[in-house]
Amino acid sequence: MDKLRQTIEAIRPLDEAAMKETERRLGRLTKPPGSLGRLESLAVQLAGIAGATVDRPPRKAVVVMAADHGVCEEGVSAFPQEVTGQMVLNFLAGGAAINVLARQAGAEVVCVDIGVKSEVAHESLLVRKVRAGTANLARGAAMTRDEAARAVEVGIGLAEELAARGIGLLATGEMGIGNTTPSAAMLAVFGELDPAEAVGRGTGLDDEGLRRKYETVKRAIETNRPNRDDVLDVIAKVGGLEIAGLAGLILGAAARGVPVVIDGFISTVAAIAAVRFAPIAREYLIPSHLSEERGHRLALRELGLEPMLNLEMRLGEGTGAALAFPVIDAACNVLSQMATFDSAGISEG
Amino acid sequence: MDKLRQTIEAIRPLDEAAMKETERRLGRLTKPPGSLGRLESLAVQLAGIAGATVDRPPRKAVVVMAADHGVCEEGVSAFPQEVTGQMVLNFLAGGAAINVLARQAGAEVVCVDIGVKSEVAHESLLVRKVRAGTANLARGAAMTRDEAARAVEVGIGLAEELAARGIGLLATGEMGIGNTTPSAAMLAVFGELDPAEAVGRGTGLDDEGLRRKYETVKRAIETNRPNRDDVLDVIAKVGGLEIAGLAGLILGAAARGVPVVIDGFISTVAAIAAVRFAPIAREYLIPSHLSEERGHRLALRELGLEPMLNLEMRLGEGTGAALAFPVIDAACNVLSQMATFDSAGISEG
Repeated sequence: MDKLRQTIEAIRPLDEAAMKETERRLGRLTKPPGSLGRLESLAVQLAGIAGATVDRPPRKAVVVMAADHGVCEEGVSAFPQEVTGQMVLNFLAGGAAINVLARQAGAEVVCVDIGVKSEVAHESLLVRKVRAGTANLARGAAMTRDEAARAVEVGIGLAEELAARGIGLLATGEMGIGNTTPSAAMLAVFGELDPAEAVGRGTGLDDEGLRRKYETVKRAIETNRPNRDDVLDVIAKVGGLEIAGLAGLILGAAARGVPVVIDGFISTVAAIAAVRFAPIAREYLIPSHLSEERGHRLALRELGLEPMLNLEMRLGEGTGAALAFPVIDAACNVLSQMATFDSAGISEG
Repeated sequence: MDKLRQTIEAIRPLDEAAMKETERRLGRLTKPPGSLGRLESLAVQLAGIAGATVDRPPRKAVVVMAADHGVCEEGVSAFPQEVTGQMVLNFLAGGAAINVLARQAGAEVVCVDIGVKSEVAHESLLVRKVRAGTANLARGAAMTRDEAARAVEVGIGLAEELAARGIGLLATGEMGIGNTTPSAAMLAVFGELDPAEAVGRGTGLDDEGLRRKYETVKRAIETNRPNRDDVLDVIAKVGGLEIAGLAGLILGAAARGVPVVIDGFISTVAAIAAVRFAPIAREYLIPSHLSEERGHRLALRELGLEPMLNLEMRLGEGTGAALAFPVIDAACNVLSQMATFDSAGISEG
């Protein structure tokens, strides 16, 4: 808990002087003022986080946190629970969608077992297992408060390690069969929403499965009565280990001055948790895509973030975030590679 | 005119068998069915165009067509007319936004003078000048019908050359101070819209300039009375040389089985013209971003296309299209690089 408190206290507001300087530089480039839109606001945000203009693409990593969910016994997923561990091996073998998209973007994939039910062994797997999957949140707390705190601290520690290794841009990824269910429950609690607004089809539930998932989320909230003003209570009662870990990753990254690209529904719920812990952490977030998963639009709205990509994806793993990397690289590259009005001898408007 | 007619006749519907085969391959990859959204529909479209699964990123080029507009004398742009030629030199020197974004995406930039008012000389410039800028469309036809046809044929010829050089993916770009004015006029005519819905601020008009631009477009349509069922008539009376060239580029690409990524407002209006010439050409279009320019949403709707990126950009040059290249590369890469359920030993839902 000390680590969590210290991390929250270490997060600083963005550097206004660096942002102003980057705005000034953008204003001299050969284009109508502001016409690069989000590329310009990204460049300004990156400067505010780094404390100086960022005109070279940063080293990037996608952190894929994997964990299992006891709530799977309620029949809330289209895939069987063993797929979590199987997909972890697929990530480590380089055959999953996130491997392909990260490779294309020049990013590494860091795979973390923070709570997979089975034992997964691989030399490249970071084993930081807090417990072997959560308990069924429809019948009681998903985990203890202490376990929730430890899972958050796993994420913080990982962000510190990656920052120390020179990673300058992180993206959130996850794998956990059933994990849209705790995400929907957390979003409903944080956003004071009817669970029906937060529950979606996940990997492909039919109407009957969707109804069952809705009933499960409703029951989870009624049974556990999480206190929405106590983030650890919400995570412990209706959350998940990988969601807690990603919330910690965001806090740890913000504390070290590293921006974080947020993937889809589950990642955005983790970001909401992070921002409830530390409101300034929001300034370190970069949204990526709008997922097809029902609750994602509301989760982004809760954070006041607008997605940059709309690719009708609903895969998770960090895939939407990885596809946003080139946009961020572009924001850096225009600063170092574009001519100015003066250097190119172009008349101004 | 023969070349235009032959090109239109050469455009074939997409290959259904190749599309089905790619769908089948996508269904075996380790992800929930359909969860890669637009990446999957892009992969299917590319297969339909190529006649076989496309599992390697194609060689790419952004074609930037440059021309001037006599309507500038009405005060419809925030920048002076000489900037068109100055920016052409900036493209050729590699200092414009499109150079940076194309370089990052591994695409070449092909710069074409199809109607710049001044003489621009550079060894890498393709000079295909149909005339030295259009006439003022608020006072008469922008160009003759014959000039419009020749400009379209310049685009067709260029697509043929690039396809022959092994380019497998084109993007549309343009530069022409004042060119959102003819684009708005063309959109209003093709879409039977009130010009107010089609006219926007371009590179940054103030309210007074916007009002003047609206009056200009209204007057252009009243004065010229273009026949919306006669594409060449619309282009000749209220169009632009680079817009005509891009329409031709799209037709030529479609006839050679090359897909085309459509940039922002001006490019999308050129695509509407192409699709009015040859409705099947629509199947060869890949939308990219949603521009901030007012009429772009309506122009995309006219084509039934949904943008993939929303970056609040309004620069043109092909910049939004270049930022969509990595999404298209990703659609190809997943097909060749992802594991299948069988190969990875993963349980299906």
